[in-house]
Amino acid sequence: MNSQKIIIIGSGAAGLTAASTIRKYDANMKITIITKATHIAYSPCAIPYCIGNEIESFDDIVMHTKEDYALKGIKIITKSEVIDINSIENKLNYKSDDGAIKELKYDSLVISTGGTPFLPPIDGVNLKGVFKIKTIEDGINVKAWIAKTKRVVVAGAGAIGLETAYSLKQMGLVVTVVEMMPQILPRALDVDMAGIAKKYLEGCGIEFLMNYPIEKIVGTEKVEGVVVNGNLIDCEMVIMATGIRSNLELAKIAGVEIGKFAIKVNENMQTSISNIYAAGDCVEVIDFISNEVTLSPFGTTAVRQGKVVGANITNCDWANKLFKPVLNAMISKIGELEIGGTGYTEILSNAHGIEFIVGNATALTKARYYPDGKKIEIKIICDKNKRIIGGQIIGTDRVAERIDALTIAILNNVTIDDLANSEFCYAPPVSMINDPLAIAAWDACEKYANKF
Amino acid sequence: MNSQKIIIIGSGAAGLTAASTIRKYDANMKITIITKATHIAYSPCAIPYCIGNEIESFDDIVMHTKEDYALKGIKIITKSEVIDINSIENKLNYKSDDGAIKELKYDSLVISTGGTPFLPPIDGVNLKGVFKIKTIEDGINVKAWIAKTKRVVVAGAGAIGLETAYSLKQMGLVVTVVEMMPQILPRALDVDMAGIAKKYLEGCGIEFLMNYPIEKIVGTEKVEGVVVNGNLIDCEMVIMATGIRSNLELAKIAGVEIGKFAIKVNENMQTSISNIYAAGDCVEVIDFISNEVTLSPFGTTAVRQGKVVGANITNCDWANKLFKPVLNAMISKIGELEIGGTGYTEILSNAHGIEFIVGNATALTKARYYPDGKKIEIKIICDKNKRIIGGQIIGTDRVAERIDALTIAILNNVTIDDLANSEFCYAPPVSMINDPLAIAAWDACEKYANKF
Repeated sequence: MNSQKIIIIGSGAAGLTAASTIRKYDANMKITIITKATHIAYSPCAIPYCIGNEIESFDDIVMHTKEDYALKGIKIITKSEVIDINSIENKLNYKSDDGAIKELKYDSLVISTGGTPFLPPIDGVNLKGVFKIKTIEDGINVKAWIAKTKRVVVAGAGAIGLETAYSLKQMGLVVTVVEMMPQILPRALDVDMAGIAKKYLEGCGIEFLMNYPIEKIVGTEKVEGVVVNGNLIDCEMVIMATGIRSNLELAKIAGVEIGKFAIKVNENMQTSISNIYAAGDCVEVIDFISNEVTLSPFGTTAVRQGKVVGANITNCDWANKLFKPVLNAMISKIGELEIGGTGYTEILSNAHGIEFIVGNATALTKARYYPDGKKIEIKIICDKNKRIIGGQIIGTDRVAERIDALTIAILNNVTIDDLANSEFCYAPPVSMINDPLAIAAWDACEKYANKF
Repeated sequence: MNSQKIIIIGSGAAGLTAASTIRKYDANMKITIITKATHIAYSPCAIPYCIGNEIESFDDIVMHTKEDYALKGIKIITKSEVIDINSIENKLNYKSDDGAIKELKYDSLVISTGGTPFLPPIDGVNLKGVFKIKTIEDGINVKAWIAKTKRVVVAGAGAIGLETAYSLKQMGLVVTVVEMMPQILPRALDVDMAGIAKKYLEGCGIEFLMNYPIEKIVGTEKVEGVVVNGNLIDCEMVIMATGIRSNLELAKIAGVEIGKFAIKVNENMQTSISNIYAAGDCVEVIDFISNEVTLSPFGTTAVRQGKVVGANITNCDWANKLFKPVLNAMISKIGELEIGGTGYTEILSNAHGIEFIVGNATALTKARYYPDGKKIEIKIICDKNKRIIGGQIIGTDRVAERIDALTIAILNNVTIDDLANSEFCYAPPVSMINDPLAIAAWDACEKYANKF
């Protein structure tokens, strides 16, 4: 009987998935999760939708309780903070809810400490009325503050910022998004596609201030405004959606190697210390296109890594044990609009010195003559060898699965020729006889012929 | 200046696409299409939806007229029938609309004569009130006959049969589908998935008689009933949706080689006579899984083949010139239900002696807590080497693009391990954090581990 002790630090998607996966493959390992959190097993991605009442209650997004895990033999110690890790003696200390310092020994340790919203060091960032969007508590606090608010400024036009901006607009606020880059969604989209999304959001009544960051937040006790490029914008609430930073303190205490951006792990999600694994927002991963390290702060990445950790710790003989390089495929739904991206944008291609060709398509989700087809905009990017390296799609229906199809294509080195001539299923109520992805790929083939 | 003469026989998707593609790549070739049809450039797949008034008018589904093509320098001779082809002297005779026999010479000939609905040789098949679903005229005739009809029997539970049955039900008729196989959609689905679709259709009020064909159609002048397994079913209309047969007469006259099922072509869509090409429902293709010949009577196949013909005839230096083996991916939308399949079913796998594993998932199109997620049923089939060889999906949303993702996966030899652990984009309003395809693949991995 294997009664190894596994300790997992953090109760986000990576940690919980690792725990469930270990239990699935091994009935006997002793699994303990230590977490600072009060609520576990909820989806941070859902918080903007709770703020806008698209999801009725924050309770809805809590998938499981501590007690559910206890029934599976997974012990979760909440509201407790690990304060020391001794990786020589395989033990750690944590401060429990009641303030007592306790010690636990482990055979394997999983560091899944996640990330923390980055708050830029500007004046006023600690005023009342400044919020981040990460935990259920954040969501509850934002919702409570709405009653006192007419005008809100959202700092950061990434997915979380835009989803939150849209929700706050739906709640009746005057919403201004401030983004220091010249476009929205700068990591996922190029300026042309971002322009389509921005226009839609402007049509929803959201204002944008581009090219400048928030210089400072003003107010005596609570927020009264922000300053952007020297101009004061009055508001009673500020949402800081300016990215997240990996939580690396405990990894450093444990003495595991930190890479360029976060904890360094091998394909088995092992750190430089072989019985310490790490997963989720606190690790760095390999970028599929460049083979360089990058970050992948997505719930799906955390889940996939948690599964790999579980398979390796239990040495499960059939489950996948390798975490493969990523494309950082993303999707966001804002109002009626689905916005997705996978792999490299033009921006990223240029940054990596990759010569590329772009193929575009403006198409429909149904046959032209079939009522109620939705417009879909597709952009595909391929390299000099015709290999697809990225895609961006915007539309009001059936975007996510097309991003997934492109992701599978990219991960399997499919060329624009392959995709342009590939088989797609067809029926008038759900597709065009020339699939939009194929049209975009065909456009890339034509442009490729003209360029190379 | 290249003023080669190209003659194309048939104005379906293959012939028209070949014509347009030739014109796109070459401004000077003389392109003539000879067709028996009155209406050109419409989608036969749309006819069931016109019958049910989901598409308002048959006019809507006509995409282009003869005159549109004339403007591009493509001459279309309608209501005319090719009666002889002399492939030694590169000329043919056709009987024109006015009855005159005319001769034309060609440099290259394209045989895209399509297929004809198969009418089994049973008593009464020529009675008034018996219809097929292929041309706009068929659709108009069916719609006119509805006024005289209370009860209709649809022979054949393939996609066209079921789509038409549903439309006729919507028009207020009592509808019985008769299928000689023990399940509906026997080419695309296995019995378990077919059962889900059948249950839905029964819920829509459609009756099914399985396991027996129609023995005969009874009536004096017009249809009064059909006999199935010795029982008389009263009805005033019969729809024969019992498959199509390739039109091979002209190919035989031309002397090109006929294969196992239809015209034999190479990857360039050339027949055994090098300046005679063929495309569409009249050719046979290679099955990607078995590498054996098969048929692929789909509009999308015809379009893709037409493009290959055009690229080869013009010798376009950049466009794809090869038609690759097929999976026969299909999708149908019947009422609210999307039903799709790609590659091999269990039935086809057994028929080819392939050992296989099935993975299943019952999942949702949105995060569990997000309102209004639709149920989606997925079945994935892999071979002994874990290579995915087929998939079937049923749901009320976002099925088609998942079939396409699976098609791309199969065509690139993706394994169940790859798919189970692949990256998928995620946002609560459009997906689950564990993608339904990944869940099905993961299930296959587990079952594989237990079997092999």
